Amino acid sequence: MDDENTVFIGSKETMDYVMAMLNQFNSGSEEVVIKARGRAISKAVDVAEITKNRFLEGSEITDIITETEELDDREGGGSTNVSSIEITVSK
Amino acid sequence: MDDENTVFIGSKETMDYVMAMLNQFNSGSEEVVIKARGRAISKAVDVAEITKNRFLEGSEITDIITETEELDDREGGGSTNVSSIEITVSK
Repeated sequence: MDDENTVFIGSKETMDYVMAMLNQFNSGSEEVVIKARGRAISKAVDVAEITKNRFLEGSEITDIITETEELDDREGGGSTNVSSIEITVSK
Repeated sequence: MDDENTVFIGSKETMDYVMAMLNQFNSGSEEVVIKARGRAISKAVDVAEITKNRFLEGSEITDIITETEELDDREGGGSTNVSSIEITVSK
């Protein structure tokens, strides 16, 4: 799946991402993957649940995977682990 | 599954919940379910990933489900929706 079917969760309002989901589905996507890291993970679950329950009748969450990603620290040579999630919503 | 095999994520440190996971497994559980709501969902994913990757060799995340729960407001008669997650870690 390329990035066209992906919604990356950042610091915007939850409903902005729900709208991004609906745009993707309205453009013909049969499934959209929500990706988030760290504290944005909670918002990713909200986006999936709100899209599914309130806006896209018959849609379902068909896959959820979690991972640990290693990020380089901005300073110094170390690295930090951060959890990530990918939630697939299909209609 | 009863609550004996469940770790509820709240406001404590992430590692406190990782230790609770390990205690459950050391007491003989073959699988432990991590439950969280709202902003604690991100921490739940951290707990699952850290338990699996750093402490419990051979364990896996075998199921992840999300839901929307309706909570009564403390004041007034309304209710608020909150997302929840259940992550099953099996060894």
